[in-house]
Amino acid sequence: MSDIEPTYSDEPTRVRRLVAEFFSGQSGADVGADGLAVDLVAGADAKDDCAVYDIKEPVSLVVGSDYVRGPKFVLYEMGLLTGFDIGYYVVAANVSDVAAMGATPIGVLTVVRYPSELDDAGFRQVIAGIHQACTDFGVLNVGGDIGNAERVVLSATALGICRPGKALMRKGARPGDLLCVTGVCGVLGAAVAYFPRQEAEGWTLPAATEERLLNAWKSPRARVAEGRILAREPYATACQDTSDGLKATIDQIMAAASVGFRVVEQNVPIDPAVRAVAELMGVEPLALSMSASSDFQLAFTLPPEHLDACRAEFASAGLDFHVIGEAIEECRVESVNAVGVTRALPGVAWRHQTSDISLLATGSEAG
Amino acid sequence: MSDIEPTYSDEPTRVRRLVAEFFSGQSGADVGADGLAVDLVAGADAKDDCAVYDIKEPVSLVVGSDYVRGPKFVLYEMGLLTGFDIGYYVVAANVSDVAAMGATPIGVLTVVRYPSELDDAGFRQVIAGIHQACTDFGVLNVGGDIGNAERVVLSATALGICRPGKALMRKGARPGDLLCVTGVCGVLGAAVAYFPRQEAEGWTLPAATEERLLNAWKSPRARVAEGRILAREPYATACQDTSDGLKATIDQIMAAASVGFRVVEQNVPIDPAVRAVAELMGVEPLALSMSASSDFQLAFTLPPEHLDACRAEFASAGLDFHVIGEAIEECRVESVNAVGVTRALPGVAWRHQTSDISLLATGSEAG
Repeated sequence: MSDIEPTYSDEPTRVRRLVAEFFSGQSGADVGADGLAVDLVAGADAKDDCAVYDIKEPVSLVVGSDYVRGPKFVLYEMGLLTGFDIGYYVVAANVSDVAAMGATPIGVLTVVRYPSELDDAGFRQVIAGIHQACTDFGVLNVGGDIGNAERVVLSATALGICRPGKALMRKGARPGDLLCVTGVCGVLGAAVAYFPRQEAEGWTLPAATEERLLNAWKSPRARVAEGRILAREPYATACQDTSDGLKATIDQIMAAASVGFRVVEQNVPIDPAVRAVAELMGVEPLALSMSASSDFQLAFTLPPEHLDACRAEFASAGLDFHVIGEAIEECRVESVNAVGVTRALPGVAWRHQTSDISLLATGSEAG
Repeated sequence: MSDIEPTYSDEPTRVRRLVAEFFSGQSGADVGADGLAVDLVAGADAKDDCAVYDIKEPVSLVVGSDYVRGPKFVLYEMGLLTGFDIGYYVVAANVSDVAAMGATPIGVLTVVRYPSELDDAGFRQVIAGIHQACTDFGVLNVGGDIGNAERVVLSATALGICRPGKALMRKGARPGDLLCVTGVCGVLGAAVAYFPRQEAEGWTLPAATEERLLNAWKSPRARVAEGRILAREPYATACQDTSDGLKATIDQIMAAASVGFRVVEQNVPIDPAVRAVAELMGVEPLALSMSASSDFQLAFTLPPEHLDACRAEFASAGLDFHVIGEAIEECRVESVNAVGVTRALPGVAWRHQTSDISLLATGSEAG
């Protein structure tokens, strides 16, 4: 008697009955930040062709789009992540790009397409995850597109604002700047390396470690507060989120700024769960920490004279970061190990369309 | 000897060799409009986490996202539309939403995901179509996401600006306003009704008519100039693009503004190609003109006292529109035929997840 038959409403019904509640009361909201006056005149509740913001004074506006699918969905397809989780994730991924510019998010637009097998309850889960992430990151879901597709498709766009000219760009890094990161990297990549191969390899990890790996996917945090501090003075000269993995991030800042980097290996924070998976894989924990992974840490460069002030501001907000190296003149990325030996930075930088993590085991790119 | 082997580069190579040329030189562009000062500080060429705009004075910012797939792709999947065409279309669809707000587009972000079968030449076609549409609509493609997927996936976001408070919203329609449309509707829907069923039904149309049907898909025009005129004074009280078909558009303005509409059937412009397809289908040409179709005309409401001035401004820009009815107090949509008989407006309003046009033939929603 308690079983509920799944229902499969059409799109207008889903919009009216399952989505509308999340959008009510948006229009008229003050979405300004840092003293910048911006009003959301028409949000998703206005159901117009576009959302409308009134921007009342000069700002820098940042905007980026990220699509989520493919290899990133492997844990969802295995049933380890729910619709709620992937909805949450697509918002985190997009807000993270805004955070990496040192901006405060003022809105996201989400594209949610789903196959006919996804019933109303499953669809509502995805929307609920999107909504929860928006709530957690202090941003409104002001529009987008909902409808059918052959498979679940999630994509989003995030908008943010900061004071004019204060957006943090990758190209600003200078030799002598400190290379910093807000936290451990590689955890999401380690989860993708572990769970799909677990059975075939006969791997086991303690339940708490497995939970840590999955939780990194379930509640990724876009580093909005950190980005805002970095852009305030501005302290940082360059910033990027680590959504392609830390090594790829360092490579990309190098390319944009025409500087190189020297990483001090013992200063790189390594998550115990990454260490555990690396041990199973027979690879260096540092290499796995550096490789393809969709963590949303911020990697940034900081002139040494700003270190103390910046750390103090982080601390007063209950935040922290790690200094893991420095920018150098020569356009190469090298690392120095505990006994002073310099080598190419270990790890496999993310390449689209390849199963990157598996390369680690063959050592094909590991230094 | 002249045959060229298809190549399948990975994503970084495609970005570097096939896409970069379309993005060069964006950063630093003045993208302001109507005297509003907006600079694109970092475009797609900056390869940063986000694009960055400096907005130097108060503006209304509009933003919307549209995904393109499913039934809309049937002509592409039949080989009647090329990758270039669908790239062009996704930009037109998104710029059209900005135009419907009376805003001038300042950027689009595009998501292009493709299956492994799509070679470099095919991929480049899609990007070239996107680029051509951006050029035609006077907007830059400032970012997005490129990568693999199971099938071609296209989605985009468009941004636009207008003077503060001048964005055209659906809710502004008032009883007594004239109901207007910038041109013929139903052509794209007629193409989808015709080509897939042509062989099975033994239908033939003159080559020129078939070309007209396909060309509506190949070079859709977002009505940016028209929207800007409508928002200038502002002349229009409400505006929406007809991307769901004219009947659905009228229904949606009704819902937003709590007004009804009376359509004068003989004033609705009907394309000869729509008439020809309607005849083959055995349905009213008016019904097919009103039904599900992704034309990007603008439907808008105009206080009668603005009619002459608005028409003069349209004419001076080489543009025109049709007055097809008026807004009424009662929340219903009716139409008056040539002999003065009032009935429910014919046509099938778009419903997602149903094959709408086919309903026409059964008359299930036709009045």
